[in-house]
Amino acid sequence: MMSVRGRDALPTGPRSQVDPQRTAAHEMFDADVASNRLGIELVSAVGGAAEARMRITDGMVNGHRIAHGGFVFLLADTAFALACNSHGPATVAAGGEITFVRPAREGDLLVARAAERTRYGRSGIYDVTVTREGGEVVAEFRGHSRVLRPAPSSSGDRPAVAGHG
Amino acid sequence: MMSVRGRDALPTGPRSQVDPQRTAAHEMFDADVASNRLGIELVSAVGGAAEARMRITDGMVNGHRIAHGGFVFLLADTAFALACNSHGPATVAAGGEITFVRPAREGDLLVARAAERTRYGRSGIYDVTVTREGGEVVAEFRGHSRVLRPAPSSSGDRPAVAGHG
Amino acid sequence: MMSVRGRDALPTGPRSQVDPQRTAAHEMFDADVASNRLGIELVSAVGGAAEARMRITDGMVNGHRIAHGGFVFLLADTAFALACNSHGPATVAAGGEITFVRPAREGDLLVARAAERTRYGRSGIYDVTVTREGGEVVAEFRGHSRVLRPAPSSSGDRPAVAGHG
Amino acid sequence: MMSVRGRDALPTGPRSQVDPQRTAAHEMFDADVASNRLGIELVSAVGGAAEARMRITDGMVNGHRIAHGGFVFLLADTAFALACNSHGPATVAAGGEITFVRPAREGDLLVARAAERTRYGRSGIYDVTVTREGGEVVAEFRGHSRVLRPAPSSSGDRPAVAGHG
Repeated sequence: MMSVRGRDALPTGPRSQVDPQRTAAHEMFDADVASNRLGIELVSAVGGAAEARMRITDGMVNGHRIAHGGFVFLLADTAFALACNSHGPATVAAGGEITFVRPAREGDLLVARAAERTRYGRSGIYDVTVTREGGEVVAEFRGHSRVLRPAPSSSGDRPAVAGHG
Repeated sequence: MMSVRGRDALPTGPRSQVDPQRTAAHEMFDADVASNRLGIELVSAVGGAAEARMRITDGMVNGHRIAHGGFVFLLADTAFALACNSHGPATVAAGGEITFVRPAREGDLLVARAAERTRYGRSGIYDVTVTREGGEVVAEFRGHSRVLRPAPSSSGDRPAVAGHG
Repeated sequence: MMSVRGRDALPTGPRSQVDPQRTAAHEMFDADVASNRLGIELVSAVGGAAEARMRITDGMVNGHRIAHGGFVFLLADTAFALACNSHGPATVAAGGEITFVRPAREGDLLVARAAERTRYGRSGIYDVTVTREGGEVVAEFRGHSRVLRPAPSSSGDRPAVAGHG
Repeated sequence: MMSVRGRDALPTGPRSQVDPQRTAAHEMFDADVASNRLGIELVSAVGGAAEARMRITDGMVNGHRIAHGGFVFLLADTAFALACNSHGPATVAAGGEITFVRPAREGDLLVARAAERTRYGRSGIYDVTVTREGGEVVAEFRGHSRVLRPAPSSSGDRPAVAGHG
């Protein structure tokens, strides 16, 4: 399955028999080196919603011996990008806000679920909740998205990127 | 130098002759596996301010072929943690907000400068600007910090961690 | 009805026959001079959720001839305060974030619906959507709450207020 | 002085001898009914910075008997609007984030100072600190601005308003 990412150890069930609906978000995720190298798994991305998972490894721990908030943000940001790109047009993060609710520790499997709150013009707002297996909330994230303008045809095949994420 | 982090390629000058003032933030940074493995360099951390640098590697790029916003956040978050821990008491991130101003690309050397805006009770607000070498702004970050309460002596040597970062 | 607020012009139906469940939030609202003078109506406040309404008057318009964002924030903030105080303990706003989705104009009746996202320790996160009659979204708000510590009995009858809102 | 706003009681000194530089922000402020009725005074607005003042009246107090956070936000939002409109082109708030640091009380004179952090494309980020007379910080605000696109000449004299503030 092209949509399967991450380490064998992830308890993801009989995935080979599942064929989740592929969207533009899956294409984007296939090219997302950062998310793939961190072992982030795309569970689903369709209709403005998405789910992604990541296990906290020994390389993700900070000076307080808990998961570095940057990696928790990164997982939420990936789920957010999957959700807003599931509609089709290339969409980037204009910004995001995260609240750290509880610490995560090495070995924790984090699940990020993104839901669309609203869209208007080329903008959108998406909420992502990051939980530990078992359901305890680790972080709450709200992201602001922006659909890229298509590049003029004469200028090549790249959209004009106004933000990143 | 214990405070030197990151890859040889960083154009950081004759560091061995520099002896920046060491604070509690340096102790924390020495134990920050995540920041160290990503090649983040601590430039300074004293008096509520800090500077840290990171080069965007090929493993930090997302599906839009620009730096994953999560890594830009992570660098800002590390600079923020260095600034708020430079005062001494163990301090964690309660949350943060980032605006992505311009995309960063593979090979860019990013510099994050954190400054304290205000402190009140056990809380603090810190602003971090992330720039590319040359000065263009890549992101603006605002972090909310919280000083940990000391653990009761009977409960062991760990502070009660209410957030992470 | 003590819970009825605002101007006669509000199309709120046969309210005298309704008896919404009263919570600590209603007591707080009765003392909320600011919300009452602006004609904000408390529709409901129970179980961590709340609804409040306000009509944009000629005194709430800014230099762009649309509703001043401050009044839209104020309505959302009141709904947020009602939701987090519906649990009982006195709770204040530590902060909030608002995105202005569409302008509101003089005469518009705005409805703010607050829902609890999560609570942890003395903290909470609440989301508020402000719509115009008919359902168009005007603003999205996320608030951070903090339960006040009870004042020591020797120090009088006032809680120690750490924030406001 | 056209730029003088607010109540006689404001200790603003011999204003009639002062002639602050007038910018597009002053024109906007003259039409800002909301800010004027609340007694907000424009102190200065030029070069991306601004200062505004407001006294907390008996009608601005909430159910915790402190200034309603909505009015503190409103003052900060007005200072933000003055700062970003001081450049000339009509600019609105896309959103804002506020942290309530200390409560304000009836009678307090609040001062909001706005400074531009960065501008990019049609967007901008502005920081506003709200203090009490004497300097204690009451709130920290960060606003996101957006320059309006000029309306097509055939469509009349109104810009297309995408946000408000």
